[in-house]
Amino acid sequence: MALEKYDRSCFFRCMKSKQTKQRLLNTGLDLLSVEGLEGLSIGRVAAEAGLSKSGLFAHVQSKQALEIELFDASAELAYRTYVEEALKQPAGFARLRALVEGWLGWSGKAGLRGGCPVAAALFELDDRPGPVRDHVAMLESRWRQLLLQLTAETIEAGEFRKELDPEQFVWELCGIYLSHHASSRFMHDPESGPRAVVALEALFERAKSHN
Amino acid sequence: MALEKYDRSCFFRCMKSKQTKQRLLNTGLDLLSVEGLEGLSIGRVAAEAGLSKSGLFAHVQSKQALEIELFDASAELAYRTYVEEALKQPAGFARLRALVEGWLGWSGKAGLRGGCPVAAALFELDDRPGPVRDHVAMLESRWRQLLLQLTAETIEAGEFRKELDPEQFVWELCGIYLSHHASSRFMHDPESGPRAVVALEALFERAKSHN
Repeated sequence: MALEKYDRSCFFRCMKSKQTKQRLLNTGLDLLSVEGLEGLSIGRVAAEAGLSKSGLFAHVQSKQALEIELFDASAELAYRTYVEEALKQPAGFARLRALVEGWLGWSGKAGLRGGCPVAAALFELDDRPGPVRDHVAMLESRWRQLLLQLTAETIEAGEFRKELDPEQFVWELCGIYLSHHASSRFMHDPESGPRAVVALEALFERAKSHN
Repeated sequence: MALEKYDRSCFFRCMKSKQTKQRLLNTGLDLLSVEGLEGLSIGRVAAEAGLSKSGLFAHVQSKQALEIELFDASAELAYRTYVEEALKQPAGFARLRALVEGWLGWSGKAGLRGGCPVAAALFELDDRPGPVRDHVAMLESRWRQLLLQLTAETIEAGEFRKELDPEQFVWELCGIYLSHHASSRFMHDPESGPRAVVALEALFERAKSHN
């Protein structure tokens, strides 16, 4: 009986701890999307999550560890927001198009107040070696691998020409994503959506034809 | 005589002050290119420029004022590094191409250790309103205006088709620039240069033909 009681109390403690951790990650991710790494002080994340600093350190060991967990949380949120759904499309152009359309402006669709934390980190961390940069590079490589895989599937399905260089195609896709991010979020250009569509259609057209 | 002596001493003081200010801006700009706004503490800029904090505040009134001056210094450095030279080309495609080729990877050519501070700020400051963001938006708008002007000149010269939408063209150019920045500086992709060339040539081709 004593054991059972102990186990149940542990179970509830663990549940509460998990909920607190989730609240910490949600708050931190939203702050990261708005402020970038610059605004992400431990004190501020703790305050906005309703924790003391020492309360926060019960969940993450360091600011660096928090940053790494937040980039993981960003990738997971992106997965739930549009990747998972896009991957249900039939392999080939339909799946690739669904993924790319979900990708553009995904952070807003996911309810974050700011932009994509990984896109920002590509520019914020480019010259700052260390574990956080390495982790973001791993996430970004994994993402580009997925884009490459879906491009290869589209070639296999006969919907893109056989001679297409998937690496070049994905490189240009990333440019359209970044230009859309900068023009919509920074320049507040109301035409950023239609401009991205025109650029995407031209890229798809080049991938289909032999031009 | 007393006046002359006073004037000369003032002249040398002013000269020395100008040199110190220039050293401060050079040091700060290099640090900004490497670290982004996050790493740009007043203490660190002062230390690297060989000044005390109060010595630094004799030249700039606040961290915000320093940041604004550094973005201006970045634009001036870009101008001296490649814009001025490109504008000497004959109006039309030659001038536009020279400008765009100079633009890609310009910060390295200019001797900065890091990437383009304005490109980084498009992602770092996107959700942070204030005078620094406003200033960067003004610099970025002015830059895009120059790209638009050279695109219009290329249409006028009959080297791009008349129906080309210059805004769309520049939007896509910015995407190629940003993808090159991310792939070369963050992903350390040795193919980023050739990939940018392929993307640019395809964009130029679409601007020339009716496709």
